[in-house]
Amino acid sequence: MADALTVLRHKADNAGWLDSAASCQLQDVHGLYQQRAGLLLYPDSTEVVSEIMAFCYQHELAVVPQSGNTGYVGGAMPTSDKQVVLSLQKMNKLLDVHAANNTMLVDAGCRLAQVQSQAAAHNRLFPLGLSVADSCLIGGNLASNAGGTSVLRYGNARDLVLGLEVVLANGRILEQLQTVRKDNSGYDLKQLFLGSEGTLGIITKAVLKLFPRPQSQVTALLGFTQLQQIVDLRDDLSEQCGESLVACEYWQQRCVQQALRYNANLQQPLVDIYPHYLLVELNSTLKCDLTSLLQQIAPQLNCEHIAITEHVSTIKNWWQLRATFPKAQRQLWTHLGSGLKHDIALSVEQIPEFLVTMKSRLLEQFEHLDIAVFGHLGDGNLHYNIGTMQSLSASEKQQINHLVYDQVMSMGGSFSAEHGIGQAKRSLLTRYKSPIAVALMRTLKQCLDPKQLLNPGKVL
Amino acid sequence: MADALTVLRHKADNAGWLDSAASCQLQDVHGLYQQRAGLLLYPDSTEVVSEIMAFCYQHELAVVPQSGNTGYVGGAMPTSDKQVVLSLQKMNKLLDVHAANNTMLVDAGCRLAQVQSQAAAHNRLFPLGLSVADSCLIGGNLASNAGGTSVLRYGNARDLVLGLEVVLANGRILEQLQTVRKDNSGYDLKQLFLGSEGTLGIITKAVLKLFPRPQSQVTALLGFTQLQQIVDLRDDLSEQCGESLVACEYWQQRCVQQALRYNANLQQPLVDIYPHYLLVELNSTLKCDLTSLLQQIAPQLNCEHIAITEHVSTIKNWWQLRATFPKAQRQLWTHLGSGLKHDIALSVEQIPEFLVTMKSRLLEQFEHLDIAVFGHLGDGNLHYNIGTMQSLSASEKQQINHLVYDQVMSMGGSFSAEHGIGQAKRSLLTRYKSPIAVALMRTLKQCLDPKQLLNPGKVL
Repeated sequence: MADALTVLRHKADNAGWLDSAASCQLQDVHGLYQQRAGLLLYPDSTEVVSEIMAFCYQHELAVVPQSGNTGYVGGAMPTSDKQVVLSLQKMNKLLDVHAANNTMLVDAGCRLAQVQSQAAAHNRLFPLGLSVADSCLIGGNLASNAGGTSVLRYGNARDLVLGLEVVLANGRILEQLQTVRKDNSGYDLKQLFLGSEGTLGIITKAVLKLFPRPQSQVTALLGFTQLQQIVDLRDDLSEQCGESLVACEYWQQRCVQQALRYNANLQQPLVDIYPHYLLVELNSTLKCDLTSLLQQIAPQLNCEHIAITEHVSTIKNWWQLRATFPKAQRQLWTHLGSGLKHDIALSVEQIPEFLVTMKSRLLEQFEHLDIAVFGHLGDGNLHYNIGTMQSLSASEKQQINHLVYDQVMSMGGSFSAEHGIGQAKRSLLTRYKSPIAVALMRTLKQCLDPKQLLNPGKVL
Repeated sequence: MADALTVLRHKADNAGWLDSAASCQLQDVHGLYQQRAGLLLYPDSTEVVSEIMAFCYQHELAVVPQSGNTGYVGGAMPTSDKQVVLSLQKMNKLLDVHAANNTMLVDAGCRLAQVQSQAAAHNRLFPLGLSVADSCLIGGNLASNAGGTSVLRYGNARDLVLGLEVVLANGRILEQLQTVRKDNSGYDLKQLFLGSEGTLGIITKAVLKLFPRPQSQVTALLGFTQLQQIVDLRDDLSEQCGESLVACEYWQQRCVQQALRYNANLQQPLVDIYPHYLLVELNSTLKCDLTSLLQQIAPQLNCEHIAITEHVSTIKNWWQLRATFPKAQRQLWTHLGSGLKHDIALSVEQIPEFLVTMKSRLLEQFEHLDIAVFGHLGDGNLHYNIGTMQSLSASEKQQINHLVYDQVMSMGGSFSAEHGIGQAKRSLLTRYKSPIAVALMRTLKQCLDPKQLLNPGKVL
């Protein structure tokens, strides 16, 4: 008798769920993980997902849902060649824009950029802002509760959802595609699936919240020399600009330098060079003069330089520079030794102390580290990235990681602000989470996925 | 051997968890439910709650957590005289305001008004807006995912929380009092408890999000004659004012009339009388002239009258009138026959059609109904309230309720927008929710409260 995987392969071949051009040898977008899958399926409807899940449940095949595969923690990659990877790429219809109600119904496989531009075409804003918008899919954004550059003002992906359709481990379809903005009719089940990285169910459709488009907008780049100015600047901007402060991104000069080396077409963002930068974006749904506002408060801001602009090309250049940091670091550090990423969160006023303490702790124990930090400062989220100038052993890497995360956790922070747990941070979960929290997570997993078939080896 | 309740009473007496002035004969604030409790306890710390819960778990005593008891669905009332009511009133410390981080740590028993004023004292806003702010407690607000008048702009109670401490059914304490704004380190367990009405755990502390205080504010009252104008007005206000539109409350003249009869000190809100009113509040964290903005767009708004004001006393009078509606309806309708409340949500543009259809369906089958509707129009939430001019049998009441909810659900709405399920709407849950959703809710309940001791007879 053929094994279940073979039976499913035949079934998929007959039903047209395979893509002959696609290989089962998989790699994530950043090249961090490689793994062969048992089978790579492309369902084109919720019903097909349901049928596949029911089959896999009956035959105890593990299933890995995959969206754009742009995550950093291997959450969408299989962990063995017995697993069925279920790509959502062919479920990519923008089903309904309801501009009057500020909602949009989408298939989970829609690209984020597609969602953003469809909202814009209806004079609305879908505010989730990620540098991988062209390749990531909304289903993955929701399953990983994506963050990005506008969380300060609009919240995480979780906050942008009104309704979900989810296929459960046994193939049953939980359809809760509400478009109403208030609904206290029982437990809010969608919360279980948002941010659970495909380990509790597979998101197949969503009703997203849209927002009025800003009428006014201005962007500024600030250069400064002292770490402590971070806190003053964030406080003053927050005090003077209130909720108009949409983005407040921090860059160290080292990141800029790496990006310029990676792409010779990029330019120094300001005439002079500063150790630290803040990229600030203000917007408002009112017609008001935000440029004047920034110009007025500029003299009081504790920074050495501020460039204020409404020029689209300047703004684009700054954001392009920002979007280059991860690529530049990956290339440089992979070439030299290894790169260690730490996606952490703290309260903003702790950040200067953290940066000073962390650097000295690391350099006490390791030489030749290349520390280059950027992040979403407005919400306290730093990408504390380290390049090692030589190849390190797994235990040395773990030692560095623990140094960083121990420090973060001792300050009441988060060891995974926006990237999630995936494969990469499972051991950190048991290291840092309270045993009661981990036990409750396991209880939920057991409840929703009793055969442990959904995205195994992730999160828990 | 003494029974467990007697043992707990002795234990509580020795430990000082009783209040000699309090009676076990309980009634909710609105006088809708009466029930004797087995025991009424006033723990003053999380540890005491934990100790009580562990005892009750061991001895299989049911526990009903109670905050301000201001809900409309009997969610905080016991359902038998064997149950232990656990009042959170003595856990009322505002533990820490962290203005720079825009967070506040509070005990669950803090009054909402206390939280609001403490935020204001630190030049911050805690935006949850309820007419019972003086008597409701924040723990209850969170457990019921309270809505209110600012949801349009700031979201429900769920959206205002960063961290929670919860005592589980077995007495164990789940402490997740994060103050960071981004945290994807595992399942977001707090979501389980927010809005689950004390049936999955008891919220004992919370980290709340604070917001910048508005720098500019204006309020207006609009009078109009045709239902269809609702949609035009909401669209135009939303288009012109964007996210500055914080409140958009709908009143029928019948509600105003009832309030004026109830309290002779109240005045007609506008010089002339209109069948419909909208109370509109704009604010902004920018210093800008919202009064001019409203004056400018006023001529284009499809209404018969608009009164725009920044006068605190006028604004207070309007909101006081609004806050009187529930009391006035209760008194009038209890006196005449009975009052039936329906807390529903629809998409805004469906509301005129709903109001017309609903009224004609009801009047086809019942004579002498007094329909008086108000609600949070901006987010589609109506309080569709009906007074019957005679006493109705339970089955007649149910018939009216089903007429209303069937219509709402056929239009894709919610049968409980902000009041929750409690005791009152349990049968509606099985009537309207999909069997898969109800089954999943039961699975969660079984998981977190295997002995079914937490707030029994509520929600499920």
